[in-house]
Amino acid sequence: MDLPEQLKSVQFFFSKLPGVGEKTAMRQTLQITNWNEKERVQFAEALVALNSLNNCENCGFFSSNSVCNYCQDEHRIETRTLCVVESITDFMAIDRSEQYKGLYHILGGVLNPLMGIGPEELKIPQLLKRIEIDKISNIILAINPSVEGDATCSYLRQKISENINVERIGFGIPMGGSLEYLDSLTIMKALENRKSFT
Amino acid sequence: MDLPEQLKSVQFFFSKLPGVGEKTAMRQTLQITNWNEKERVQFAEALVALNSLNNCENCGFFSSNSVCNYCQDEHRIETRTLCVVESITDFMAIDRSEQYKGLYHILGGVLNPLMGIGPEELKIPQLLKRIEIDKISNIILAINPSVEGDATCSYLRQKISENINVERIGFGIPMGGSLEYLDSLTIMKALENRKSFT
Repeated sequence: MDLPEQLKSVQFFFSKLPGVGEKTAMRQTLQITNWNEKERVQFAEALVALNSLNNCENCGFFSSNSVCNYCQDEHRIETRTLCVVESITDFMAIDRSEQYKGLYHILGGVLNPLMGIGPEELKIPQLLKRIEIDKISNIILAINPSVEGDATCSYLRQKISENINVERIGFGIPMGGSLEYLDSLTIMKALENRKSFT
Repeated sequence: MDLPEQLKSVQFFFSKLPGVGEKTAMRQTLQITNWNEKERVQFAEALVALNSLNNCENCGFFSSNSVCNYCQDEHRIETRTLCVVESITDFMAIDRSEQYKGLYHILGGVLNPLMGIGPEELKIPQLLKRIEIDKISNIILAINPSVEGDATCSYLRQKISENINVERIGFGIPMGGSLEYLDSLTIMKALENRKSFT
């Protein structure tokens, strides 16, 4: 079927989104053709407005000021604890759990020499500076488990002074998970990470 | 969590799309923050370009000219057959099946007096004129089964000259469907529509 170019180009952008295939993208595009002109212009303006998003100089999270509310929070600074994450979405996931009350630092990825991603491409120099400035004494590495993630954690452990307590988040069976359906690597990690149970 | 307004407004538009909830909308919005500025601007321009989409004067399908390729196709005109559908997406679904080689007419909905949708709100007057101009002799009502759809079909049958052969598409068990999981109405229709089997 011979569809207008206008539809195809909107479909192209929708299909770049996670979990959106070509069919869904066209369905969404057709849906938007039912909106009124004003709504489409507003949607377009909202997309362009994302260009004005700023990031916190310290941790890398979204912020309208140069330093975000998290980094300015006295209670968080006083914990002297810094949680290192890969991405903004990982930051948000930890924050949603409402279990962590310290500072954050977003690396912007993990080390990947094959892809040309070294410490300078990530926010690692800034992390090392920040540890000194904020007098951090505890670091939680909330880096996802993968070959690159593990290597990044080892690299950071070497670079960070031995006086500082560095921990990595626990790996094991997720809540609601079932041994029957979990991969062997997760089960191996869960066995390694067993704790005395009283 | 206190997220910037820019994110919330993009999330709002994504969540208006079919099958996109608030969580998915935010995930897609965050994904777009990883695009470069130029891509976001191009996406925005593509959305605004939808405002320039034109519809065929005859059938209502997308067209860059005043009359679309379907309506200009001599082979289709010669069939003297017109398929009446509710929407552009229904048009596309029938065309995808590659079983129908006649003309189309998009009503733009079905009659719904409670919602104030009468024949004038739909492309019914245009349909009646077109039947004369194009010397249509067969009409296929490819209207979805519903109270309003059924009423629309009855109304059209009354309005269309008795010399013209009017048929409605068949209802029954869909391919791959299983009697066990189908609703009673579909099974009732399937029993009504049984055919001699030799």
